[in-house]
Amino acid sequence: MTRERVRSLLTRVADGTISPDLALDDLAKEPFESLEFATIDHHRALRQGFPEVIYGEGKTTEQIVAIAERIAERHGGFLATRLREDAAAALAGRFHDIEINALGRTAHLPGATPAPVGRGTVMIVTAGTSDLPVAEEACVTAIALGNPIARLNDVGVAGIHRLLARRDQLFSASIVIAIAGMDGALASVIGGLVRVPVIAVPTSVGYGAAFEGLAPLLAMLNSCAAGITVVNIDNGFGAAVAASRINHN
Amino acid sequence: MTRERVRSLLTRVADGTISPDLALDDLAKEPFESLEFATIDHHRALRQGFPEVIYGEGKTTEQIVAIAERIAERHGGFLATRLREDAAAALAGRFHDIEINALGRTAHLPGATPAPVGRGTVMIVTAGTSDLPVAEEACVTAIALGNPIARLNDVGVAGIHRLLARRDQLFSASIVIAIAGMDGALASVIGGLVRVPVIAVPTSVGYGAAFEGLAPLLAMLNSCAAGITVVNIDNGFGAAVAASRINHN
Amino acid sequence: MTRERVRSLLTRVADGTISPDLALDDLAKEPFESLEFATIDHHRALRQGFPEVIYGEGKTTEQIVAIAERIAERHGGFLATRLREDAAAALAGRFHDIEINALGRTAHLPGATPAPVGRGTVMIVTAGTSDLPVAEEACVTAIALGNPIARLNDVGVAGIHRLLARRDQLFSASIVIAIAGMDGALASVIGGLVRVPVIAVPTSVGYGAAFEGLAPLLAMLNSCAAGITVVNIDNGFGAAVAASRINHN
Amino acid sequence: MTRERVRSLLTRVADGTISPDLALDDLAKEPFESLEFATIDHHRALRQGFPEVIYGEGKTTEQIVAIAERIAERHGGFLATRLREDAAAALAGRFHDIEINALGRTAHLPGATPAPVGRGTVMIVTAGTSDLPVAEEACVTAIALGNPIARLNDVGVAGIHRLLARRDQLFSASIVIAIAGMDGALASVIGGLVRVPVIAVPTSVGYGAAFEGLAPLLAMLNSCAAGITVVNIDNGFGAAVAASRINHN
Amino acid sequence: MTRERVRSLLTRVADGTISPDLALDDLAKEPFESLEFATIDHHRALRQGFPEVIYGEGKTTEQIVAIAERIAERHGGFLATRLREDAAAALAGRFHDIEINALGRTAHLPGATPAPVGRGTVMIVTAGTSDLPVAEEACVTAIALGNPIARLNDVGVAGIHRLLARRDQLFSASIVIAIAGMDGALASVIGGLVRVPVIAVPTSVGYGAAFEGLAPLLAMLNSCAAGITVVNIDNGFGAAVAASRINHN
Amino acid sequence: MTRERVRSLLTRVADGTISPDLALDDLAKEPFESLEFATIDHHRALRQGFPEVIYGEGKTTEQIVAIAERIAERHGGFLATRLREDAAAALAGRFHDIEINALGRTAHLPGATPAPVGRGTVMIVTAGTSDLPVAEEACVTAIALGNPIARLNDVGVAGIHRLLARRDQLFSASIVIAIAGMDGALASVIGGLVRVPVIAVPTSVGYGAAFEGLAPLLAMLNSCAAGITVVNIDNGFGAAVAASRINHN
Amino acid sequence: MTRERVRSLLTRVADGTISPDLALDDLAKEPFESLEFATIDHHRALRQGFPEVIYGEGKTTEQIVAIAERIAERHGGFLATRLREDAAAALAGRFHDIEINALGRTAHLPGATPAPVGRGTVMIVTAGTSDLPVAEEACVTAIALGNPIARLNDVGVAGIHRLLARRDQLFSASIVIAIAGMDGALASVIGGLVRVPVIAVPTSVGYGAAFEGLAPLLAMLNSCAAGITVVNIDNGFGAAVAASRINHN
Amino acid sequence: MTRERVRSLLTRVADGTISPDLALDDLAKEPFESLEFATIDHHRALRQGFPEVIYGEGKTTEQIVAIAERIAERHGGFLATRLREDAAAALAGRFHDIEINALGRTAHLPGATPAPVGRGTVMIVTAGTSDLPVAEEACVTAIALGNPIARLNDVGVAGIHRLLARRDQLFSASIVIAIAGMDGALASVIGGLVRVPVIAVPTSVGYGAAFEGLAPLLAMLNSCAAGITVVNIDNGFGAAVAASRINHN
Repeated sequence: MTRERVRSLLTRVADGTISPDLALDDLAKEPFESLEFATIDHHRALRQGFPEVIYGEGKTTEQIVAIAERIAERHGGFLATRLREDAAAALAGRFHDIEINALGRTAHLPGATPAPVGRGTVMIVTAGTSDLPVAEEACVTAIALGNPIARLNDVGVAGIHRLLARRDQLFSASIVIAIAGMDGALASVIGGLVRVPVIAVPTSVGYGAAFEGLAPLLAMLNSCAAGITVVNIDNGFGAAVAASRINHN
Repeated sequence: MTRERVRSLLTRVADGTISPDLALDDLAKEPFESLEFATIDHHRALRQGFPEVIYGEGKTTEQIVAIAERIAERHGGFLATRLREDAAAALAGRFHDIEINALGRTAHLPGATPAPVGRGTVMIVTAGTSDLPVAEEACVTAIALGNPIARLNDVGVAGIHRLLARRDQLFSASIVIAIAGMDGALASVIGGLVRVPVIAVPTSVGYGAAFEGLAPLLAMLNSCAAGITVVNIDNGFGAAVAASRINHN
Repeated sequence: MTRERVRSLLTRVADGTISPDLALDDLAKEPFESLEFATIDHHRALRQGFPEVIYGEGKTTEQIVAIAERIAERHGGFLATRLREDAAAALAGRFHDIEINALGRTAHLPGATPAPVGRGTVMIVTAGTSDLPVAEEACVTAIALGNPIARLNDVGVAGIHRLLARRDQLFSASIVIAIAGMDGALASVIGGLVRVPVIAVPTSVGYGAAFEGLAPLLAMLNSCAAGITVVNIDNGFGAAVAASRINHN
Repeated sequence: MTRERVRSLLTRVADGTISPDLALDDLAKEPFESLEFATIDHHRALRQGFPEVIYGEGKTTEQIVAIAERIAERHGGFLATRLREDAAAALAGRFHDIEINALGRTAHLPGATPAPVGRGTVMIVTAGTSDLPVAEEACVTAIALGNPIARLNDVGVAGIHRLLARRDQLFSASIVIAIAGMDGALASVIGGLVRVPVIAVPTSVGYGAAFEGLAPLLAMLNSCAAGITVVNIDNGFGAAVAASRINHN
Repeated sequence: MTRERVRSLLTRVADGTISPDLALDDLAKEPFESLEFATIDHHRALRQGFPEVIYGEGKTTEQIVAIAERIAERHGGFLATRLREDAAAALAGRFHDIEINALGRTAHLPGATPAPVGRGTVMIVTAGTSDLPVAEEACVTAIALGNPIARLNDVGVAGIHRLLARRDQLFSASIVIAIAGMDGALASVIGGLVRVPVIAVPTSVGYGAAFEGLAPLLAMLNSCAAGITVVNIDNGFGAAVAASRINHN
Repeated sequence: MTRERVRSLLTRVADGTISPDLALDDLAKEPFESLEFATIDHHRALRQGFPEVIYGEGKTTEQIVAIAERIAERHGGFLATRLREDAAAALAGRFHDIEINALGRTAHLPGATPAPVGRGTVMIVTAGTSDLPVAEEACVTAIALGNPIARLNDVGVAGIHRLLARRDQLFSASIVIAIAGMDGALASVIGGLVRVPVIAVPTSVGYGAAFEGLAPLLAMLNSCAAGITVVNIDNGFGAAVAASRINHN
Repeated sequence: MTRERVRSLLTRVADGTISPDLALDDLAKEPFESLEFATIDHHRALRQGFPEVIYGEGKTTEQIVAIAERIAERHGGFLATRLREDAAAALAGRFHDIEINALGRTAHLPGATPAPVGRGTVMIVTAGTSDLPVAEEACVTAIALGNPIARLNDVGVAGIHRLLARRDQLFSASIVIAIAGMDGALASVIGGLVRVPVIAVPTSVGYGAAFEGLAPLLAMLNSCAAGITVVNIDNGFGAAVAASRINHN
Repeated sequence: MTRERVRSLLTRVADGTISPDLALDDLAKEPFESLEFATIDHHRALRQGFPEVIYGEGKTTEQIVAIAERIAERHGGFLATRLREDAAAALAGRFHDIEINALGRTAHLPGATPAPVGRGTVMIVTAGTSDLPVAEEACVTAIALGNPIARLNDVGVAGIHRLLARRDQLFSASIVIAIAGMDGALASVIGGLVRVPVIAVPTSVGYGAAFEGLAPLLAMLNSCAAGITVVNIDNGFGAAVAASRINHN
């Protein structure tokens, strides 16, 4: 509510056009009524080329398909994550050019106009083969949001030479997504080697005291390499969106 | 030894100003220096663009001063964090142009050649006044690493109009550091508003069930706004380094 | 035990009608024997129109049907929650006018005399589509207990304009039940907007570090908006009963 | 600025006592005021019926006094909680009619126009003497927000007759705040006895496995008495605000 | 090793019968070699009438049957707990007079000579119907070990009159086993009423924040009624053995 | 007022020594007495054979002395636990024959009529010297409640011969209280050796991952020796009351 | 990078053979380029006779078989752990002389040249029959790595004579692996008896508050017997590798 | 009494230097000695090669000195850990040749006959300067138990070249003790480099979400390098004893 609108309101109170009580009601709501930015926010989605992403967990197949249809209609395409097999199959049956990634549990229907390409390459690195489903989710998301990607798989620190031998590839990245379960140490070692942003993704891979990803989560939050940031356990999607925010900055 | 100083050294070798042997002596001290109790990583400045930062927690005042002297000698300046009052006083007595930040518990001795300036502004936002010490640590670190900063204080979501009224300032930032204790909800709301990278810092502010920052930490890791990344509890330093990695990308 | 009853007891000891030992036994039990309020409590259930609600978890289908029959006989109807599919089917087969809610996992047999209607409207708000089962449980319970309800779905803070655009609806409520998983931030934002009671329900929706609802539970307990209260994870039933206590106050 | 003061301002505009421009100047300071370290939410009084309360934890004495002065200037009075002794002393020295509660760690400066009185009595009940500081905080807050209160102290379930003997008092309440550490069982027993809203406050009282209030917190969240709601550990303030929301509904 | 045996050993060293090294070996092992109590311990099992109880979890059906056969051969009967359905069926097929309790997941083959009867009655009390499986395990075990039992079911504190109305039964018990999930408050209330030993059993019954029994476990450990002891979550077996130790004391 | 004193009062009514009215006055003060800050449960002595014990934690010295005076007046003596040094000193100054135990942090004023003696000896065993404060609290409490005690100190399983060598002493006990920090293994070994009731007390003794007693608490709850029961961390008082309930059964 | 290589690099800069910028790039990478030890590490695997072990969890059957083929080709044999039934079957179908251990969920294809035999015997001890799967994994691994093994099963401390009676066997071991769930006390007792290395393995065996192995894990980390080390929950594989490191030291 | 002293005693009996009765008197004091508050395990030296070590935490200075005197008398020397400053001062005043380590909080009085020397060198490695107190405790203990040691300080993986540059030193060790807080990643990297036993010690160093050492503890338990074992948080003593068990194997 601008200064002018408040002055106008008060003038109407002064000349009796509206009662003090009505003006009170109006003022009490005010800080929110002035917020037309919500529409702007909607435009931002249009500009960036990615509308709301469908999170499949806890939704029925019918709900997922219905939401997908609405988004596809408005934006030409969509991305869905954490899909059960039946939901993925239903989407595959409904949309022609859809790309299903079974390991990553995603479905991507590219829109007519692809997302603008970001400034550099997002390098997606895994500590072990068991981290692959999370890496797949990150890859599909990064690509959907317009980011060139590269991959390094199974280079955990138990055999650190595997990582060091590929440091040229690592140094060529603009952003690194480091995916690891167990001790999560891969993120710290990478964070100490490169100067670009490192986004760490703990995975729920490991024996009992990994506690479904708690161990690498805490390790990554406590990385001795400064300036590493962390996303939720198994959240390849979130890491890719964070990378894309950086890459389109 | 900063990247700039090595480049200058090599240039002087190339143009004959100094001999290879003299340059060798200088480089040979790299990449690390062993005190009895510490192995200073002088090479870090080369790899990551800034020398090793002194983490004051768990070190004696004597150790802190000794390490600071070695780094200042090699790099012209240094940054120290988490300083007890006596350690800060000892550094202030030892180094002339040092800048002490009591609230943030930091000491910064700027080097002769300032760090190169990053691409945009780092906006540091707090939910409440009690989060200020963490914000101070982040500000001092961001500045030391060559990042223009801006600030928004005490704009937590309990009165969301305080934040929304300043959304123009928020939209002007290249990177946002969102600092909050209690429910950590500030990070989610900001993450939903802006398109730039958002780094969330949970703080140990709050009643009992905040469990020393666990509540906002978990909330931020689970932010419903996609692409937010998180650092350790009260880790303003780490957030600023992460922001600087992005800003100098 | 009133003063008179104690005097009478002592008099009977004095005249030898009863022995000291018998009187001792009687006195030792006393504080409970005076409690005829238990019957009153039973009357309260009658007056409020809702007898004991059947919690289906951990009960066999036979036990559930048998309890339902006894309550229906005494009160004309009943409410059952957390029903497995087979238990819901058994109840549906046994009671004619029963209303089964598959998503909310409830069964409601309305009594002959409906519950008295509360003073205002209970607004049930969800952050996302995945929170719907909990919202359904809350709705069915609120209606069964005689509360007019309204609903706002999928208005989480990741797109805060969705909530703000509907603030007139929000302001029309007497009580708000805010249901959210992940960061639980919806409850804090609503708590800062409205002046009426807000009951927060954390849900078990979210990636790994949501820890089955722990993250939103802690966030809601630590809400920076003062005066929010919280119920158990996924406990839509409890939230609705709490709302009904307020609404019939 | 309280809702009452805005209404009065508007009435004076309506009857010509002050000009719209003067009123505008006054309102323009709303809805918040920026100190360097705090953004005071003056609008809160309008939205929620009472001005922002000062949370003393983590703030310097100077910050607390400065914020208190701003709020007192605009609203005539203020409430501050979680005060260290020196902060309480500084406020006592600065404000004449202030009421300091040492046990509850609060300071209250009543405004010129007292808050409107709620519909019923808030009964504040403790399980043991060690819970008193939390109860004091709740009492001071409830009174400041315009709620008649009553008290029952040290009536934990280890001697349940202490509670049952006073059930008439308990039944006379409009809202019950049940404060208990250890097993938190008091809340469940009260919740089973009364039909009015019950707000449970876990306290950090108890031997080791109470884990600073975790035990009663979990117990209260799992109360077998339906419709109890819970606030944060030791959060007497939050419980009283919640009660006041209900009482002024 | 008695003083006499050591003297004899030393004498044999002195007269050269054995070498110092052999004596050294003997002395080094000594504290364990003197422990013939292991046999005595075996006698204890015989005297008490209950040999090792078979814990079915994590054992194959073949292992369970084989162990049962060996124990039955030596002692005439056995008790097995935590049996999967197939293991129970296999035991039922193998042993004629075996008693299977499906709800409690136990199998009991009474021996020829029943266990000696304890001094009093063990009262097994549950808060709700969902706690019955644990109560069944406790009952079968208590009976197998020679303890008269009595039962009170579904007397949780949400309707405390249910418990108080039966206090005569409660007072007649020698030992009370209080079984409850959720808030575990039943144990505290009983502990405050009776003077006999109370053994509390938390169960894994309850909504999310019960965390599989953690909530009642902590509540019971923190009971405000002094002198309550606690066993593991859902451990009806352990509670009954503890009661039997008391009852045969 | 102890059970003995009530019996004596009633006997004097029966034989005409005092009138019913005088007895009534005396009993009427029962069952509890309200101080402003405490509701003393005088009836507890009747119900459970000993008056309410004063728990010093979280109470001011003035409150402790005031409560002690009331209980001493009615019952002739009292027991107080968890006393700060100043509170112990104040009690020592106020009551002549009081016994202060500095290590156990208790104060005991024996009443005129000692508690009736239980059936057997309570053996209090510690794993290490660091567990002594908890053992002292248990000893003082057990004695105050009328239980003969015996002690075994520093016999943890790291040197299991220390325990085994004294198994005769161990076998002579009626009840064993096993006190241990760290791994809590002492309780399991004792539980496997003796047939009498074993009450395990975890202590907060140990390195980091003992987590203030969580490690031995969980270990004891999971004891492989069947029929061990557990009390709260460091709760020597609770263990002794539990033992006394058994010993006076 | 040796001193000589740096001198040569600098000389080439001095004589213009390479530019300062190229030298800078080289120096910046340097600490890693000097690491040809990665190849050496590969040789170590060859020398020790055990290449990378295949961890079956989270890998598809196809991935497992493919990795196994590659390792078998290079090293003549392989070891795989944590195999689902279908993966074990696929390996059994593919490799002729493979040894499948269903209980331990392992597959072992011995290489042509067996691993060199370690210095002593690894004794693998379990507390109960339910710990056998973990013991099997340890046995298979220890044998595959060239370690003679011995076994003691079901000697938990609930009947400590079972362990003590076999102390000669225990004393004959070079290294002990102590496997236990529940209270994990077996490790402490063994650690107090023997002087050789003891590796403790907590298992996920036990009632509720074992929390999937957390209880024995914490107990073992807090063992009162000094010098016990611990591996992850259920990690028989890791314990055997640790033992083999010791045994081949 | 060390193993050597017993052998010498027996030899003197064999050659008639002392009579069996005198030897008996000496041995009879074994295997333990009862102070009022402690049962010193003198036999431990026989069983495990070194006498009982005094753990200072939770013991009074008087108790510590008294125990030290008894052990010194019997064994010629002693080791004490976790000493408060006053306890260390008291020991220094009482014993002449004692060695106090203030940083490590230890006191060591070497015995007349030094412990036999182990087979190889124990390399003690720290990630950072803040880990030094734990390393000191480990060093003092290792030396006291007869182990040659070497040290590498401040070589955490944030600058991995610091570690790699010293790999020759690392490869020369027989056993490695890896000490790290924060992410604990040092242990994994070392475990992947060396083939000898690695004992990991998590420290309580780090920001909030290190949770007093929980983060590195979990990371180390989940190390991706196979065969690493772990001791308790900050337990340098335990790690050294474990290393000594291996080194004297």
